[in-house]
Amino acid sequence: MHNEPYLLTPGPLTTSLSVKQAMLRDWGSWDGDFNQITAAICQDLLTLANAQQTHVCVPLQGSGTYLVEAVFATLLAKDSKTLVLMNGAYGQRAAAILQRMGKTCVTLDKGDYQPPLAQEVDELLRQDPLITHVVVIHCETSSGILNPVDAIAKVVAAQGRELIIDSMSAFGALPVDANELPFTALVSSANKCLEGVPGFGFALIRETALVSCEGQSPSLSLDLYDQWRYMQKTGQWRFTPPTHVVAAFHQALQEYQLEGGQSARLARYSRNRDRLVAGMRALGFQTLLEDAWLSPIIITFLSPDDPAFSFMPFYQQMKSRGFLIYPGKLTQVESFRLGCIGQLFDSQINAVLEAVADSCTALGLTAIQPPQTMSL
Amino acid sequence: MHNEPYLLTPGPLTTSLSVKQAMLRDWGSWDGDFNQITAAICQDLLTLANAQQTHVCVPLQGSGTYLVEAVFATLLAKDSKTLVLMNGAYGQRAAAILQRMGKTCVTLDKGDYQPPLAQEVDELLRQDPLITHVVVIHCETSSGILNPVDAIAKVVAAQGRELIIDSMSAFGALPVDANELPFTALVSSANKCLEGVPGFGFALIRETALVSCEGQSPSLSLDLYDQWRYMQKTGQWRFTPPTHVVAAFHQALQEYQLEGGQSARLARYSRNRDRLVAGMRALGFQTLLEDAWLSPIIITFLSPDDPAFSFMPFYQQMKSRGFLIYPGKLTQVESFRLGCIGQLFDSQINAVLEAVADSCTALGLTAIQPPQTMSL
Repeated sequence: MHNEPYLLTPGPLTTSLSVKQAMLRDWGSWDGDFNQITAAICQDLLTLANAQQTHVCVPLQGSGTYLVEAVFATLLAKDSKTLVLMNGAYGQRAAAILQRMGKTCVTLDKGDYQPPLAQEVDELLRQDPLITHVVVIHCETSSGILNPVDAIAKVVAAQGRELIIDSMSAFGALPVDANELPFTALVSSANKCLEGVPGFGFALIRETALVSCEGQSPSLSLDLYDQWRYMQKTGQWRFTPPTHVVAAFHQALQEYQLEGGQSARLARYSRNRDRLVAGMRALGFQTLLEDAWLSPIIITFLSPDDPAFSFMPFYQQMKSRGFLIYPGKLTQVESFRLGCIGQLFDSQINAVLEAVADSCTALGLTAIQPPQTMSL
Repeated sequence: MHNEPYLLTPGPLTTSLSVKQAMLRDWGSWDGDFNQITAAICQDLLTLANAQQTHVCVPLQGSGTYLVEAVFATLLAKDSKTLVLMNGAYGQRAAAILQRMGKTCVTLDKGDYQPPLAQEVDELLRQDPLITHVVVIHCETSSGILNPVDAIAKVVAAQGRELIIDSMSAFGALPVDANELPFTALVSSANKCLEGVPGFGFALIRETALVSCEGQSPSLSLDLYDQWRYMQKTGQWRFTPPTHVVAAFHQALQEYQLEGGQSARLARYSRNRDRLVAGMRALGFQTLLEDAWLSPIIITFLSPDDPAFSFMPFYQQMKSRGFLIYPGKLTQVESFRLGCIGQLFDSQINAVLEAVADSCTALGLTAIQPPQTMSL
């Protein structure tokens, strides 16, 4: 039974009941039993990125944005200069964080949805030897694009600069192997592809980079060096962790392994995307991006060119049918987004497509086709 | 049935099952239903402090310490000078946060457990007209002392300075009336006397002070001005909130009202404290503080002067009997702490005292008396 709306959003997302049930207990944040959960989570996350030999895992209370800011605050020295690769809201936010902190920052702004390309990054780095760090968004959910992180990582490494990957909405589904994808820091959050609930995030940081960062962060709360050292020494978080959320994440990681880990989750999300895209196209909707750039995380659909369509009525129609969809985030064209991550399987995707068709009918949209039997 | 340890800690604490059950649902953080929960919580918190006409409530993701830092980051201008009243770990932490941020800060350090007195504050403010803000810890849980916040607030107001109250572990149990207790900002957290689970906190901020703070915070994540304005405009949190934790807090506030609100909760916690102190004294334990300074939040007991006693074995004995206790935080003398907040009632307090007596026997402590029938 599922009597609440499914979340077609890129996190928070629909989690399993058993993940939520792991929150039905109060934990002492000082107690050894809870420390074991924290340690197991950190170990699992490092293993997942094949980073046990090179990186450390530092979890931190707060939303994903806190992790991005914490990595900047902790790792970036006074004389750092950071190149932010922007093609949407999360790249813009990374630059905004740096500007607030007073850190030197340059940007490559590709607009709403064009990918930053490795050769462009290569040129910018050659032109400016003062650039110390490059920030890239793994999956930019504002358009749903999967950025070419592997190719970018190679040129950043070849130029001897440090790469920070905001893999918030991708880590756990997209493969990350620290031995093949060179990065200094990668950040993600509990409530994305690993299907926990929101309340904390984590950074995988190259130990040789972190070890020299004592006292560098202007923020005590967001100091990942202090958090790391304290956790090493005591097994505890420095400040009160969201204990229930952490316990839920521990359960989510176990269910992730049971499902078959990264490859299985990527396969399910990719299948969700492919079936969603095929079904929506059959209904007459168009994706913003060509197939090659479509992430298995979230997809942007262009709003139909029909005066009967506007987002909020469509949202309400979809909600009344049990699905919460996501508004578009493009500056130039009207759009909306459908996520494919979380506890969504074939039957939910079928139901989404039916709900879209019914919602369009209810709104009096004329150009929309009835849903077709899906053979994918 | 309760098959997990009770938390005798000052938050996270033992919450009701129904509070935890409120986390068995996934919420869309963008959706109107969730926005209503956020709005209701903010309204309830303002009402609780009788601050609806003067202050705004700004919730923020993270632990309580994040809220303290966020208030400093948001409210303190470049030329601010802050006096921190210290008598324990949380006063020290406030000063550490300010130092990291590069804010000018002076301290009145009363050591482990002496209260800062209103006349001392008055003198310091007279001597230094450059001091713009005063920070006081409402209940300093490192010793368990209840600081004389009312008297201090009066002299701070009389001197025309701004008061920031860290009421983390006191708000909801101790009375706060913004019309009688003048403060610029008061911060607290979901997982203390209002008996929610950890994951976010909130600040009540005088609107006339907050309104001029745009762009002042060097941290985007911790900017309470931005958080406030965005929430005003959209009803949403700027970044992903801990939706399940927020829903649990909403439930906790309803149970708080059902119990009878602040006066009823204070009465229950005070009774817990009185019965715990009387019972522990009957067993031969001594409190660190005189009765007048004992908070109804957490109590520091001196470790018995007996070589058979040390904290970790005592902790394990208590844990095996279903209670997680808290280590001491004093620099001069050995101690441990027992909290009286959370879902603790007469029967739990009775059981705590039995567990203490049994643990002492198991450890071979000789000077401890058998528990007596309590007539309180």
